Amino acid sequence: MTFILASKSPRRKEILKKINLNFKIYSSELNEKNVINNYKYSSSYCKNLAIKKATLVSNNFPENYVIGADTIVVYKNIILNKPKNRKEAFNHLNLLNNSKHTVCTGVALINKSKKIKKSFIDKTEVYFNKLTNKEINYYIDKYRPYDKAGSYAIQEYSNVFIKKINGCFYNVVGFPLSKFYKLLNKELNILTNYE
Amino acid sequence: MTFILASKSPRRKEILKKINLNFKIYSSELNEKNVINNYKYSSSYCKNLAIKKATLVSNNFPENYVIGADTIVVYKNIILNKPKNRKEAFNHLNLLNNSKHTVCTGVALINKSKKIKKSFIDKTEVYFNKLTNKEINYYIDKYRPYDKAGSYAIQEYSNVFIKKINGCFYNVVGFPLSKFYKLLNKELNILTNYE
Repeated sequence: MTFILASKSPRRKEILKKINLNFKIYSSELNEKNVINNYKYSSSYCKNLAIKKATLVSNNFPENYVIGADTIVVYKNIILNKPKNRKEAFNHLNLLNNSKHTVCTGVALINKSKKIKKSFIDKTEVYFNKLTNKEINYYIDKYRPYDKAGSYAIQEYSNVFIKKINGCFYNVVGFPLSKFYKLLNKELNILTNYE
Repeated sequence: MTFILASKSPRRKEILKKINLNFKIYSSELNEKNVINNYKYSSSYCKNLAIKKATLVSNNFPENYVIGADTIVVYKNIILNKPKNRKEAFNHLNLLNNSKHTVCTGVALINKSKKIKKSFIDKTEVYFNKLTNKEINYYIDKYRPYDKAGSYAIQEYSNVFIKKINGCFYNVVGFPLSKFYKLLNKELNILTNYE
């Protein structure tokens, strides 16, 4: 059984490889700009985007299990996307500074021919340390987090900004592995098939 | 300024590399069997071991900042070490099953010539999912966690056992990066020197 990960993210690929899933990668090439109508958070936002991504790829691969995922960083009901420029990256980190925010990943698993369509959301609370402007500026200049939602990456240098998390670490990286395994193994009982 | 990591753990090396520290590795070759007199937990246990490891290496490198670390898995005040055999690995995972435990890492930073001797402990709560015997047996047979304290590794396959954590993820992997950065940057003000 071959799964398809509908995401180009190298981080998601690395995480999914941990459970030895036999999978290929086909990006949905979804233009997220057409989907994001506003930046106000609702809990179904990232789940709907994950379903959209998986559905687009499922149309081409109806026999396969297609995995879609979307991760968002939410601070006080505002979604922090990838920063457009240096100023926005600074503003993101200044908001998160000395405060709590939530990272949500929506995951969808679709098998069109089997009529299976499952989805869930995982949420992790992330608590930032108190940062100085110097620390924020150093990080932005050296690490240029312009491809990172919320302008940081928990698995890289900016881990030092984080006091603690409450939830799943890999959910913050981009894919909630443990909950996904539960879906495959407990709910769909399809995990043993590939061993 | 060159740091010395007094640990052979490849995981600690990987974590420490995230903050671009200029460091070399010299293991303390401490025989932990001579140190562990009993398996009863006390909060200073891993800190003392970290200090011992750093002190041993500091004697050979008095001019350098030497980093010692020791990580333990604690379930209800009992330290779960590396399992001696298959039965002990099963017993560990069966204890952690559907329950909460704590991972503690003690860290020591010693510079003998500067008379600097700092240490701290970081604790992370780890909540396990409910596991079946089949899941535990599959994991032990396939992944052979005989070199892992507590018989699992949060950053590998066995991440699927974990419902959530409360604290620092890299502390569970073996080195509390964020708290160590804080010690270097805020308390000792030596981090900017190497940039």
